[in-house]
Amino acid sequence: MSIAHLLELNRQRSQPLYRQIAEQIRVQIAEGRLPAGTRLPTVRQLAETLGVTRVTAQNAYSELQANGLVESTVGRGTFVVGSPQTDELITAIVKEETAEQAMNTMHLLDQIAGLRSFAYAEPDPALFPIDDFRLAFNGLSASLHDLMLYASPQGDPALRIEIAAMLGEQHIACVPDDIIVTAGVSQGLALVTLSCLEAPPHQVSAESKIAVDQPVYLGLMRLLTTTRTQPVGVPWDSDGPRLDVLEQAIIEQGIRFFYTSANFQNPTGYCMSETRRVDLLALANRYGLYIVEDDSYGLLDYGDTHPQSLKALDKHERVIYLSGFSKIVMPGLRLGYVLAPPELRERISFMRRTLDLSGALYLQRAMAHFLHRGRLKAHLRRVLPRYRERRDAMLNALQRTMPHGVTWTHPAGGLCCWVTLPSGQYDDLYHMALRHGVAFTPGNAFLVQSDGAVHMRLCFGRQSPENISDGIAILAQLIRGNNSGATRLRTLSHDWPLV
Amino acid sequence: MSIAHLLELNRQRSQPLYRQIAEQIRVQIAEGRLPAGTRLPTVRQLAETLGVTRVTAQNAYSELQANGLVESTVGRGTFVVGSPQTDELITAIVKEETAEQAMNTMHLLDQIAGLRSFAYAEPDPALFPIDDFRLAFNGLSASLHDLMLYASPQGDPALRIEIAAMLGEQHIACVPDDIIVTAGVSQGLALVTLSCLEAPPHQVSAESKIAVDQPVYLGLMRLLTTTRTQPVGVPWDSDGPRLDVLEQAIIEQGIRFFYTSANFQNPTGYCMSETRRVDLLALANRYGLYIVEDDSYGLLDYGDTHPQSLKALDKHERVIYLSGFSKIVMPGLRLGYVLAPPELRERISFMRRTLDLSGALYLQRAMAHFLHRGRLKAHLRRVLPRYRERRDAMLNALQRTMPHGVTWTHPAGGLCCWVTLPSGQYDDLYHMALRHGVAFTPGNAFLVQSDGAVHMRLCFGRQSPENISDGIAILAQLIRGNNSGATRLRTLSHDWPLV
Repeated sequence: MSIAHLLELNRQRSQPLYRQIAEQIRVQIAEGRLPAGTRLPTVRQLAETLGVTRVTAQNAYSELQANGLVESTVGRGTFVVGSPQTDELITAIVKEETAEQAMNTMHLLDQIAGLRSFAYAEPDPALFPIDDFRLAFNGLSASLHDLMLYASPQGDPALRIEIAAMLGEQHIACVPDDIIVTAGVSQGLALVTLSCLEAPPHQVSAESKIAVDQPVYLGLMRLLTTTRTQPVGVPWDSDGPRLDVLEQAIIEQGIRFFYTSANFQNPTGYCMSETRRVDLLALANRYGLYIVEDDSYGLLDYGDTHPQSLKALDKHERVIYLSGFSKIVMPGLRLGYVLAPPELRERISFMRRTLDLSGALYLQRAMAHFLHRGRLKAHLRRVLPRYRERRDAMLNALQRTMPHGVTWTHPAGGLCCWVTLPSGQYDDLYHMALRHGVAFTPGNAFLVQSDGAVHMRLCFGRQSPENISDGIAILAQLIRGNNSGATRLRTLSHDWPLV
Repeated sequence: MSIAHLLELNRQRSQPLYRQIAEQIRVQIAEGRLPAGTRLPTVRQLAETLGVTRVTAQNAYSELQANGLVESTVGRGTFVVGSPQTDELITAIVKEETAEQAMNTMHLLDQIAGLRSFAYAEPDPALFPIDDFRLAFNGLSASLHDLMLYASPQGDPALRIEIAAMLGEQHIACVPDDIIVTAGVSQGLALVTLSCLEAPPHQVSAESKIAVDQPVYLGLMRLLTTTRTQPVGVPWDSDGPRLDVLEQAIIEQGIRFFYTSANFQNPTGYCMSETRRVDLLALANRYGLYIVEDDSYGLLDYGDTHPQSLKALDKHERVIYLSGFSKIVMPGLRLGYVLAPPELRERISFMRRTLDLSGALYLQRAMAHFLHRGRLKAHLRRVLPRYRERRDAMLNALQRTMPHGVTWTHPAGGLCCWVTLPSGQYDDLYHMALRHGVAFTPGNAFLVQSDGAVHMRLCFGRQSPENISDGIAILAQLIRGNNSGATRLRTLSHDWPLV
């Protein structure tokens, strides 16, 4: 039977035709009417049968391919690869013990339909400012030609002007020429690590070292491992990173760089006290320490006090400041920036030229337009109340449901909450939660060295308040059951299909 | 006097208003009516005075900023920075002796108006397939939302399907899953260097080594310096890289990687003979050597024989194949790809995740559409005759004008011609040529170790046949004058304003 008999297009609907085709094929696959291995018609055949253009037919296939539902092989055709079953996916997701494993399997979570995932420190795609960027891209159509040349490794001057203006409003004094545009904060960190860090001069080993917040951003751990840089963990007390530990690392190990997030840190949501900020900068100035400040979440601020970044307080050029638009706008633009002390700037932009020559001017200019039109502020006005509501839903649910002995942070911004469990065995918690439709990231992945406790990172950005309440309740039940030695899962009431 | 009196907009013209504004301000600056330091009206004032929208006014300023003619500083306004004078620019361009210096000053050449530049191995922007991409981007508008998520580090499946199909037509058997999309060939090379190269096991030094074509691509030299990788030059004879030199490097220095371009190499335009390709692959197979094949120029093929890539002949997975769209489509898309032997793939895509997480799905999908619609072939049909014509113009002019003793390559494809001068002193040739309106890249920058001769790389892709003829004639005169001990510049007839 031809696939055409399975599909019904409605040209009156606002949904584009290719989307209608893709969705209907997806449903056919999900419902087993197009089993894995089925050969689909060629683009030409599909187009002719349905009376659509070939571009439409191809767009439908591209969409299905992007979702991993079909695959085309040269000269053979397009085949249904089927959607992996939830059970198989869960089995594939090993319990992460190291940063490595965690990052390798996290992407599989997205393929599990209906999951209440607290695993990603990411903004909600439903809140993306798509209309603004559609407008921005349309506006660039006339100058597309110039935007398809190589850019300067430092980035589009128009975007740097806007970023400098934005930073000025955040009390960070700078001019456009001080800024280096990067492919996200990730690339910024890679550039700094590869171009600035060197083994301390009096060390015999050729390995370079860096002090880092403990716990710390997972991607940084991966980067340090890959570049053979040894992290030295600096734990936080209630005010911020412990300066006695940091000072000892400087004196005894020749540490010259300290990676930290003062505002709404990933994974904890911690915020440094103002006193600690001042003391940290004084310490940096005393020892010639560079602070690598990751301010990715700084603008996701749900409070009234609006803490300033370390960079804003930095009088002596001790701070290498990194931030970007992945968490506050959209990650797919791959845009971040570095503001470094003058003596490091040339090295960093030189490294950018070495690694990939320059970024895509087209995306940079679109962001410049977005910023120039004041749309970032409008966007934040729209999304901050939503994220605040989700943060509140998570804190309320934790308060309501978690058994005695469980503790958690109270983030005033950002997307992460850090939960610490009372001592006990939780080996199977991650998988049990997955089987009950809840995902989190095991906390051990974020620790340079174990602190003896069991932690979870719970991100609230991508779930509705209802899903957050339900998900936390399930986690609480599992933890309680685990702790009482008996699993009382049968009493759980939820709509997850697996139990 | 208000700037508005200097400008005259024509709403009937097809040129967008912001372009008209930008161009007229540019003319005012060039003609000295808006000297450096002049404060321009605010966007709001400009918009009101001219009766245009603020977006239009801002677009005009953004364009001027992108061209370095004005600069905005937070809270101060927008100022004319003036266009640097040609004389100053030329003085700023030091004679490049090393790859480093060459790449640091080359970008200045673009600012010298009217220059006949043979300095860039780049496609002609006037030949970019802009309409195709305008269409592709418009077509993505409906799915913009999905394209603003993080992509897989391996790249968009839809693009990988198209690349696999394209490679299949080039006799390279692969499936989409084998391909890793990169931010240009530059990033591909960085990924391979950082993830695959390790110091040979029996070496005491921690420095890794790689054999490379001599001469070799400038960006690779920079990358190797930055990553502390030592290049070992393998000179070419008329058939290709000298395998005796390569074999010796393998045996004596533990070399395990060889970077080469079989087709239309940058900087020489060389093409490897078929016998040498087969022998090189046999050598690689015998010693477990990996060949890093840079095929950036492979599709810019002006001949009838269409030589196959090393990868197409590779039966034993010895070739790490890199290519991209910067030279054959447009560099601003920042798109390339790597096809590596299975045992290296995971490492390379892991390194991509480490360095910048993933590329921009939006640009990748646009390229997928372009390829899927068969537009690459159409584009090549359009541009290959143009580049062939320019190549011919260069070879004819060299033949017609160069003094005895000068030799050059006869590229069957690509964008580069490699000229070798007879022994003599040419210290000032680079600057003399610049002052006569001709730019080239000194050949020494491309050499791992000097071969005692003086070389020039002349790229013909971005100049008209007329400019090529004129430029080569000027170079020939300078070389002749230099050689005869007397500079006969006064007899030169051309329109360059500096002499």
